Amino acid sequence: MQTIKIGLLGFGQIGSGCYTLLKMRSRDLAQQCGVRFQVKKIAVRNLRKKRQVKVPAGLLTTDAMSIVRDPDIDIVVELIGGVTDARKLVREALLRGKHVVTANKALLAEHGDEIFELACRRKSWLLFEASVGGGIPVIKALREGLVANRIDSIHSIINGTSNYILTRMSEDHMDFSEALKLAQAKGYAEADPRLDIEGIDAQHKLAILVRFAFGGRVKFKDIHCEGIATIRKEDIEFAEEFGYRIKLLAIAKRGHTGIEARVQPTLLPKEHILANVNGAFNAVLLRGDAVGDVLLYGRGAGSLPTASAVVSDLVDIAKRGTDRFADLTLVMRAIRSELRVASISTILSRYYLRFHITDQPGVLSKISHVLGKYGISISDCVQKIRSQGSVVPLILLTHEAPERSVREAIGVIDRLRVVRGPSQVIRIESGSPQ
Amino acid sequence: MQTIKIGLLGFGQIGSGCYTLLKMRSRDLAQQCGVRFQVKKIAVRNLRKKRQVKVPAGLLTTDAMSIVRDPDIDIVVELIGGVTDARKLVREALLRGKHVVTANKALLAEHGDEIFELACRRKSWLLFEASVGGGIPVIKALREGLVANRIDSIHSIINGTSNYILTRMSEDHMDFSEALKLAQAKGYAEADPRLDIEGIDAQHKLAILVRFAFGGRVKFKDIHCEGIATIRKEDIEFAEEFGYRIKLLAIAKRGHTGIEARVQPTLLPKEHILANVNGAFNAVLLRGDAVGDVLLYGRGAGSLPTASAVVSDLVDIAKRGTDRFADLTLVMRAIRSELRVASISTILSRYYLRFHITDQPGVLSKISHVLGKYGISISDCVQKIRSQGSVVPLILLTHEAPERSVREAIGVIDRLRVVRGPSQVIRIESGSPQ
Repeated sequence: MQTIKIGLLGFGQIGSGCYTLLKMRSRDLAQQCGVRFQVKKIAVRNLRKKRQVKVPAGLLTTDAMSIVRDPDIDIVVELIGGVTDARKLVREALLRGKHVVTANKALLAEHGDEIFELACRRKSWLLFEASVGGGIPVIKALREGLVANRIDSIHSIINGTSNYILTRMSEDHMDFSEALKLAQAKGYAEADPRLDIEGIDAQHKLAILVRFAFGGRVKFKDIHCEGIATIRKEDIEFAEEFGYRIKLLAIAKRGHTGIEARVQPTLLPKEHILANVNGAFNAVLLRGDAVGDVLLYGRGAGSLPTASAVVSDLVDIAKRGTDRFADLTLVMRAIRSELRVASISTILSRYYLRFHITDQPGVLSKISHVLGKYGISISDCVQKIRSQGSVVPLILLTHEAPERSVREAIGVIDRLRVVRGPSQVIRIESGSPQ
Repeated sequence: MQTIKIGLLGFGQIGSGCYTLLKMRSRDLAQQCGVRFQVKKIAVRNLRKKRQVKVPAGLLTTDAMSIVRDPDIDIVVELIGGVTDARKLVREALLRGKHVVTANKALLAEHGDEIFELACRRKSWLLFEASVGGGIPVIKALREGLVANRIDSIHSIINGTSNYILTRMSEDHMDFSEALKLAQAKGYAEADPRLDIEGIDAQHKLAILVRFAFGGRVKFKDIHCEGIATIRKEDIEFAEEFGYRIKLLAIAKRGHTGIEARVQPTLLPKEHILANVNGAFNAVLLRGDAVGDVLLYGRGAGSLPTASAVVSDLVDIAKRGTDRFADLTLVMRAIRSELRVASISTILSRYYLRFHITDQPGVLSKISHVLGKYGISISDCVQKIRSQGSVVPLILLTHEAPERSVREAIGVIDRLRVVRGPSQVIRIESGSPQ
């Protein structure tokens, strides 16, 4: 039986999960692929670190480049994260004709053109199921299961940390900072949580989905990104009153002026299937022109769930044979042309607007007058009454309106004397799966 | 560019969907597989029938066997359904070394051992993504995406007709026959709806899932099957009061005495993700030991959704090359050994029990006395009071109890003088995705 030799770069959560899973399943995998996987070397930062998963000391090295250059290694599994070292190592591995499996969304989002082109040139497999949605086989669905479809839209919850925080705010009536602390205590959020709560992690993943769903190069920076740190408990409560929940969605769809692609807090009708994805779970809703809506849901992070995706990529390579050329048709399509990403100012959406106003006669009329001047019409309205002269929230939901008009109107409204503090603007997505 | 020649058996909903989709996507598919698909012949029952999808008359034939025997055909796509003719045609195609793609769940459920063995012997591809869950890539997830997992359980909604009927009963307060009529009017249910509402269609699909999730032969008849015709509007309303919805689930899990596999109406907590799968949608929740819970959701039927799955199978074969041997490792695993299916009488479950009783003092005590004697303890109780002496429903939810004890206890209770009409017994599944 052929042995496929693997070099693991990184031995944190995911790396040790892969090592464990490959050992645990070695007999099954040998039966199913007719090959044996052998982890030949593991690159770590510190040889002496205490590890929960025991490995023979001889496997470890601090010299990652030596693994990539080892002629005996068939597949390099890159799990160190970040873009600097990972980029050098993945480039070198591909240049040396090795196959690469990676979970590195930042690398693929920011340097995808270079990396995918190199894989095509060297005719090497470059698989990355673990980079989006952890163990959920969403990349495989896009590449293979839904191959007969033109993908028309993606609506997804692909950052478990943000979804956990929003779920706690909604279910346990916490405010943002309280929920963030809990997420950190539970290990769902990092000590420095910015990548997650500012939406950048989701932006990375969306860049990958957009590339393969719509087939073309996409500049990571063209994807509009808003995080959840501005969401207040009161926004969640008002949304609830109108029948909505707030989720951090990564959205992409074919629009009139190009591909719309954005990460944003979003009001979703309570009965929408994505509104019911709670806690640290991820879900990706894809709309294909033949299949209609397909949702994939599961754990988007964690040691063994992510390892499950990495190992499925290894099996895919093994089944096709490491000596044969990779199937690169979809990758080629994903670097051939540039996708036109629409500017956020050109989109149409419904909006949730929250103003803090001085409670006095005529305020609603003043604000709605401004909105009217910009062609924005109101569909729903709630004003909390306290006592004359106090500061109260006023919530308006709008019909569909151009983003540019809404931003301009808000600029004017925020300068009104009766408006206290900055306004809140959250987009609304309607419609259920079709 | 190589041309792959396809023979379509059947030109109903799915067949014409495949023909349309292959035409619509021909350029994309050629780019992605480096081959062209050509539908060379289509077997129909009646050459003169008016068809919505126009095809050159020369493609049609009433002689399906001539397609299967045509040495020029590479892949036979079997979409005629039923087990008699389909079985002969698929056997003959495999014997002649052709690859086969089929959507025929009845054939694979009832004659899977024979058909899969033949495919292995002839080293032909036999793909069947469309047989379960329409366009949802669930078979691919089991075969490839989750290949690193031991699958521990399946909870699924895989009959759209039943789910549509139960959704209408729940949301629009219809009774069963009213909802069935609406389903028929909308084209979700056949004139003869028995295959769907008696659970047999779901039983066929579960047999296929069980074979590939747990890896072994399974006798279709060993899968316990209950339909939805006995569910009354009042059951749905009482379930709602306790915080549950009723869904027709196809369940399989590793139990103490073997694989538990059953199709049954089930009480699910309202917040469970499957409780929120409504209308004609399907969903399959798989639990893997590494990945945890993964849900796949989408349209389980319909012309283009199902065609999407058939075409993805064609692409899978094309990409591997029709002249190469098929990857049969998983198929071989699925016929190698016999799975031990546990008898329904040996399972443990929680239960919803509904009795119609004469409203008089001491009835609850009599019934709970019988349950106690059989070791069944009650977790919740609702008794609707009308007037002394009238017939009222009494609802009990139990803690976990052995099926056998529950059936015996119900037998005794149904013979009590105060109990009017047959009792209702519905199993409860608890627990949310992990």
